[in-house]
Amino acid sequence: MIIRHPQIMHVFDQNATKFALLKTRLSEINDIESAAALLHWDQATYMPVRGATARGRQLATLKQISHEKFIDPAIGELLEDLRPWEANLPYDDPAASLIRVTRKDYDRAVRVSSEFMAKLSRHQANCYEAWVKAKAENNFAIVQPYLEKTLELSQEYSEFFPGNQHIADPLISLSDDGMTVAQLRPLFAEFRQELVPIVDAIASQPIADDICLHQDFPEHQQLEFCRTIIERIGYDFTRGRQDKTLHPFMINFSIDDARITTRVYENNLTQALFSTIHEMGHALYEMGNSPDFEGTPLAGGISSGVHESQSRLWENLVGHSRGFWECFYPQLQGVFLRQLSQVSIHKFYRAINKVARSLIRTDADEVTYNLHVMIRFELELDLLEGKISVRDLPEAWNESYRRDLHLIPPNDSIGVMQDVHWYVGTIGGMFQGYAIGNLMSAQFYEAALKFDPEIPVEIEQGNFNLLHNWLKENIYQHGRKYTATEIMERVTGSPLSIQPFIRYIRQKYGDFYSLRNEN
Amino acid sequence: MIIRHPQIMHVFDQNATKFALLKTRLSEINDIESAAALLHWDQATYMPVRGATARGRQLATLKQISHEKFIDPAIGELLEDLRPWEANLPYDDPAASLIRVTRKDYDRAVRVSSEFMAKLSRHQANCYEAWVKAKAENNFAIVQPYLEKTLELSQEYSEFFPGNQHIADPLISLSDDGMTVAQLRPLFAEFRQELVPIVDAIASQPIADDICLHQDFPEHQQLEFCRTIIERIGYDFTRGRQDKTLHPFMINFSIDDARITTRVYENNLTQALFSTIHEMGHALYEMGNSPDFEGTPLAGGISSGVHESQSRLWENLVGHSRGFWECFYPQLQGVFLRQLSQVSIHKFYRAINKVARSLIRTDADEVTYNLHVMIRFELELDLLEGKISVRDLPEAWNESYRRDLHLIPPNDSIGVMQDVHWYVGTIGGMFQGYAIGNLMSAQFYEAALKFDPEIPVEIEQGNFNLLHNWLKENIYQHGRKYTATEIMERVTGSPLSIQPFIRYIRQKYGDFYSLRNEN
Repeated sequence: MIIRHPQIMHVFDQNATKFALLKTRLSEINDIESAAALLHWDQATYMPVRGATARGRQLATLKQISHEKFIDPAIGELLEDLRPWEANLPYDDPAASLIRVTRKDYDRAVRVSSEFMAKLSRHQANCYEAWVKAKAENNFAIVQPYLEKTLELSQEYSEFFPGNQHIADPLISLSDDGMTVAQLRPLFAEFRQELVPIVDAIASQPIADDICLHQDFPEHQQLEFCRTIIERIGYDFTRGRQDKTLHPFMINFSIDDARITTRVYENNLTQALFSTIHEMGHALYEMGNSPDFEGTPLAGGISSGVHESQSRLWENLVGHSRGFWECFYPQLQGVFLRQLSQVSIHKFYRAINKVARSLIRTDADEVTYNLHVMIRFELELDLLEGKISVRDLPEAWNESYRRDLHLIPPNDSIGVMQDVHWYVGTIGGMFQGYAIGNLMSAQFYEAALKFDPEIPVEIEQGNFNLLHNWLKENIYQHGRKYTATEIMERVTGSPLSIQPFIRYIRQKYGDFYSLRNEN
Repeated sequence: MIIRHPQIMHVFDQNATKFALLKTRLSEINDIESAAALLHWDQATYMPVRGATARGRQLATLKQISHEKFIDPAIGELLEDLRPWEANLPYDDPAASLIRVTRKDYDRAVRVSSEFMAKLSRHQANCYEAWVKAKAENNFAIVQPYLEKTLELSQEYSEFFPGNQHIADPLISLSDDGMTVAQLRPLFAEFRQELVPIVDAIASQPIADDICLHQDFPEHQQLEFCRTIIERIGYDFTRGRQDKTLHPFMINFSIDDARITTRVYENNLTQALFSTIHEMGHALYEMGNSPDFEGTPLAGGISSGVHESQSRLWENLVGHSRGFWECFYPQLQGVFLRQLSQVSIHKFYRAINKVARSLIRTDADEVTYNLHVMIRFELELDLLEGKISVRDLPEAWNESYRRDLHLIPPNDSIGVMQDVHWYVGTIGGMFQGYAIGNLMSAQFYEAALKFDPEIPVEIEQGNFNLLHNWLKENIYQHGRKYTATEIMERVTGSPLSIQPFIRYIRQKYGDFYSLRNEN
């Protein structure tokens, strides 16, 4: 090689050095975050109860060190110095993408003062304690002052980002970067308008019989069956594991260590089964990231919505499909012979797809689920805009449930206090991802089927490679490289829309129910 | 309160402020170390295999951050500034002790360059890999060059501490602070001189029959029995837990979270049982630290020898005693009715106390065990002094075994390569703690019995409070406040001696064997 322009080489070397320096710093931060994640996993799975005090301190220390290291001005300078280099690289070049995504994270992190973040953290811990007590005693008044403070702090957080159209936008951006109230409000309004008549139509017809799911199903058999199923789908137990926790979750400490948890109800076959497939969906996404992204901000999922789209795609569009059970139901019958040998696949399929208005979001079927989510999203906006006060929230909650689900919670514990989100997070940005995820799951799956119509045929034969590979190729491998809007356009050729989900629901449930076709 | 001497108050305030600052820094470091310990525990228990690469990186990062934060000159300055304050406090004042112990750790840490520590770490990881391969293939030549490098690095480490009497002293001080070759060599020579005739006498008489321990003992029953026993002794499962690992260990993440691990052999009842009691002994020590020491360098155990004295005290002096099994043997028979109902307590007691010359340290009985340890200690000194080379080590090993145990290892895998210590640590300082621990265990126990002769009577009735409380009061609560020499003098009124151990062995085994009384 002949070096004709040594000064250019010099600049190139400088950029390469600075980029390497940036990556080293980011990798160190990633290691600290991963250690913090393990502290959290251990706390939820195996930690002895009295380890909690020290664990809280350890988690706080690691989070603080990681935050301090990330907002170090040296990172800002590196990002600034690398700007011209980045500008000359293609948009989706890995280095350019890493710089771009890091800069976005950095700009957000440095905007908010460390003092505020510490104050918010401390408050969230106190608010959570109050919620546990308030929920157990069914007394919203206990947590009300804490939630009022949460609302204040949420508004205060938003003020660190002046120039937003809506006060909720910075909070929404925390989990669904780029999404705004201006975009979501009309989308959800349209969604609700389509969904309510479908729910009304279903609710007016006889309810599905799911008694077959509520027999006695021993825990170890359930867990073994869950394990078999996800291993067959493609969850790699050399790169993950499953444990029991109070609430199911996915957590990962590297691309090659993405763990899931579940809970088992012996009198309900669906809890462990579908939470396992759900969390597996999250894990497949993380495990499918390009190995080159390991230890960098490019590893992970784009947003709460996109992540949820992957868990819901596997849980609902695949895991609740007739084809899936054509393959697995005989095995399930084999495991639970006494309980299921007399239950036909049709009866089982109807039972797991029972649609009914209910009070609890996490137990809701895939049709009514979105109404639960949109109620919460609207209440968040009303609170942030000052249209309702925290004091009025329980009543507003109940009124929304009456309006959309024709049910009124008998008490606040399973009403306004049912979900932990507001009580350990912020008001604003906590729920939209669940509905966006459902919409995206159908839109992505439609694109997958368009790409290869054989996918459902393969699934019926217990072969998940076609779909899994398509998802890896189109979504998983890219990690956080593209935004949610970009990946949606790239993969489906269209912006986010409610139509694929509505088509999916109409087609699937049209087989059981008479649904007036409104479109 | 009237402040008469504001300038004194000011100095006091300054000291208090500086001391608080020091504690804050140390607590942060302790949090990072605890997180690293959890990463290690997870790797040994539940981590999926392919998580190992990222885990290695995460551990290295945390260790480096903790090291950097500890050798920060600001800590040195605080320690220096606090010197006059410390000098005016009583020696065993908690604040003075914290400053004194921290200074000792700090002085040691800053002596060795970070570059050297990084080099040593990298080499140790490589050497470990080579040892795994060499041991599996029974080929010492594979690991020999790595071990030669380890020897060099061990010598190099020692050079950071000029002015020592013996090159091994700084290495010994790493785990048994204050102990020296000048002290240990004559002590061990005396120990060996007493021990060899006892072993010879026993070996000349019929060997105990332990076939009753080698039946089929299902794993879950073994684990449940172990759990019951240690809970009865005083291990608090709200502050710890037990899991399975390849090699048993104790690890703790706070005073209130001290976990143990074990392994189970279904054809050998003693493996899980006594390793559980052993690790429980380590855990009781950590759990018994004064709660005020949480998160400071005063928490923990004094030295490898003192820590081992606590595990061996419970494992051997209590767990292998006749009184202990008077209480528990009927329960053990109940758990393993088919296997043990025909085995008398006398037969069982003889079986668990079988003494026989053998090749493997970790399987050795409490009498011959110390010969294994002293062989290693002598070989370490010979290597460091250049009396033998690494190349000659296998032969020297075999010759030592022939001399002291009348056995020659059939191959190097169960000869010179049987223990991991040299291959993942240093040469020097790796083994003396095991023999010191055995000596101390007998000396402490003798002191306990002198304090309250009822202890063995209580144990026979399954009541361990008398002994446990005495240990808490005299040893556990003090954490690292006193040195090994100090605690020995405080608790037993004498310096470390071989006599209590020899008395214990002579008395116990004199019941079975004819032992010429040499004293």
